[in-house]
Amino acid sequence: MQDLRTSDIREILKVTQQPEIISFAGGLPASELLPAAEMAELARDLLLDDGVRALQYAPTEGLDMLRELIAGRLQRLWGMRRSTDEVLIVSGSQQALDLTGKLFLDEGDVVLCESPTYLGAIGAFRAYRPTFVEVPTDDDGMVPAALEDRLSSLDRVQLIYVVPDFQNPSGRRWSIERRRKLVELAGRFDVPVIEDAPYAELCFEGEPMPPVAALGDACSVVYLGTASKILSPGMRLGWVVADSDLIRRYVLVKQSTDLHTSSLVQLLAARFMLENDLEAHIARLRDVYRKRRDAMLTALEEHFPQHVSFTRPAGGLFLWVVLPEGVDARWLLERALEERVAFVPGESFFPGGGHENTLRLNFSAMPEERITEGICRLGRVLSTVTADALAAV
Amino acid sequence: MQDLRTSDIREILKVTQQPEIISFAGGLPASELLPAAEMAELARDLLLDDGVRALQYAPTEGLDMLRELIAGRLQRLWGMRRSTDEVLIVSGSQQALDLTGKLFLDEGDVVLCESPTYLGAIGAFRAYRPTFVEVPTDDDGMVPAALEDRLSSLDRVQLIYVVPDFQNPSGRRWSIERRRKLVELAGRFDVPVIEDAPYAELCFEGEPMPPVAALGDACSVVYLGTASKILSPGMRLGWVVADSDLIRRYVLVKQSTDLHTSSLVQLLAARFMLENDLEAHIARLRDVYRKRRDAMLTALEEHFPQHVSFTRPAGGLFLWVVLPEGVDARWLLERALEERVAFVPGESFFPGGGHENTLRLNFSAMPEERITEGICRLGRVLSTVTADALAAV
Repeated sequence: MQDLRTSDIREILKVTQQPEIISFAGGLPASELLPAAEMAELARDLLLDDGVRALQYAPTEGLDMLRELIAGRLQRLWGMRRSTDEVLIVSGSQQALDLTGKLFLDEGDVVLCESPTYLGAIGAFRAYRPTFVEVPTDDDGMVPAALEDRLSSLDRVQLIYVVPDFQNPSGRRWSIERRRKLVELAGRFDVPVIEDAPYAELCFEGEPMPPVAALGDACSVVYLGTASKILSPGMRLGWVVADSDLIRRYVLVKQSTDLHTSSLVQLLAARFMLENDLEAHIARLRDVYRKRRDAMLTALEEHFPQHVSFTRPAGGLFLWVVLPEGVDARWLLERALEERVAFVPGESFFPGGGHENTLRLNFSAMPEERITEGICRLGRVLSTVTADALAAV
Repeated sequence: MQDLRTSDIREILKVTQQPEIISFAGGLPASELLPAAEMAELARDLLLDDGVRALQYAPTEGLDMLRELIAGRLQRLWGMRRSTDEVLIVSGSQQALDLTGKLFLDEGDVVLCESPTYLGAIGAFRAYRPTFVEVPTDDDGMVPAALEDRLSSLDRVQLIYVVPDFQNPSGRRWSIERRRKLVELAGRFDVPVIEDAPYAELCFEGEPMPPVAALGDACSVVYLGTASKILSPGMRLGWVVADSDLIRRYVLVKQSTDLHTSSLVQLLAARFMLENDLEAHIARLRDVYRKRRDAMLTALEEHFPQHVSFTRPAGGLFLWVVLPEGVDARWLLERALEERVAFVPGESFFPGGGHENTLRLNFSAMPEERITEGICRLGRVLSTVTADALAAV
């Protein structure tokens, strides 16, 4: 089992941990907004009054208290009516992806995904040796005719994997029509949808869109949520929401994979939801990230050459850049690192490779002035690089 | 992917959570000895002075600070000289087993294991569809001639999985001669040994035995350690120790499985090791568990029929009971539950099934008087059951 592209990115991320580098490469939430002081008091209190539960073995499915809080919150936010036994607590949504692969995929099975799609899902699923088929995707989501074509022409389609809200890497959000069409097609062809929703709550503009999982029972949806982008990624806490029969199968798989998710971490998240105002905390994140996105867009307009295009995400952590054909983002990265700026080349987000002229930029992890400075440096590199490349074409 | 036997045990464990039941079924460390008060202060302090590190993403391999502390401790305890890059932090040793399966096993590969062997390893490896071959095992460990026979006659042997210290479920400890012989044979046939060592530090009598991993470089050993039995199982923290090339491969696999183990949990364990006396804590556990084992052995001698045999483990959490042939432990369990006593029937610990007349008893989780009462009740049930069974033979 190897995934060299993932390991390339590991190398990039290591370089970018040097403080003098302005890194748009990671997918980190803003460190200064992590609620460490609040967590300090909560952790102390819970270990004092509920210490055995925090430190002893727990059920594989997760602590009921946290499962209930999550079910309740999904109902408040999105009108999703789910019971406790439709919620499984996992060790971050990366684990949810791994368990999904283990449960659904055998060698040669087909996974339909957006183009581009989330790198971590490619890595998690690849361990189970499926064939990835990228469905043509535009700014509104997967193109329905293309999805229908794949569903009707391909054998052994086991999953449709989507990130409908402010996708990593593109920043795109699916329209409501496309969500409805996905439910209809998945139901008609009886293929489960894996809806990965880490960024859904980080919506900067307009009304949030309902999750695919809230659009009725016409198809089976496995909804993946996480505390990573709304509370803390280092805790490693996520949740899988699906019908209770399917959750029971996930529980069996999780049991042999890591027994259960840290009880301490589960209780800490539950206490935060009970005793702090999670919604106010997320509102603050939205506010800060919107300003950072604005700073990045302004800088991109000012400093990037005209023949470079980019998305204008209405939420999330990332935007997506398309360079002129013939400009290789990996080659650009080498030049950029000399100027002490980093990003992730886009090729790794396409299971089939190609698209060397794309790249992903993160805007959540640093203050506006660093963003502006970094984009200015990157624009400088790009101007020479693209001029050379265009001359060479 | 199904593992019905694992799921049977889940059902038993659920029943046994009722407080009126005296349960020898679980594998829980003593709740009253979990260091919750110490952890409360440490958790608060670390979130106040190192909050970003505790709550932000961390490297997949684990925090260097903890990796160093673990490497240093392995050297102090067992003379194992390992560098930081030979240690990977994982989410409990159940995850170490899962990653091991993912890395080493393809469908039809052979895993050699003790007979009986650890149920959690069977479950973890089974997801990758190997063939388990039980190597005849006596009170000193795998029988060398039998191991050599399997190694020389079987194709595709990928792993030798062993729990040399106070094995779960049998309580057995391998002799030093058998450990040396294992190293020699594994080296000669070039098959890696997976040494699972959750109980090695819980040695009640005599000198601790050196781990297989400390017996030289003649074979490749992957050593699995855990905080579950010496600190807290609910934290979900373990470590894999192997040569650095192999650790790099484990890191790639772990990255796509759950990204990294909770940073908060890692820092909490590191602080405990730095600021508290872990060795004194473990000495206290040993003391309490030795008394509980003694209480169980005394009660077994007094209350069990003579034609029932049991192991006398010098450490760990479990002992192993062999009933007369023809007495089925699952049937016994039904009777025992009526008397409000529980245990785990032994069959699940044999990948090939059979051995219905065996069972596992845990002695760490409850005070002596409950142990005595529980064994007395179980003895009562056994007396009638075995009399009936012997009459029927």
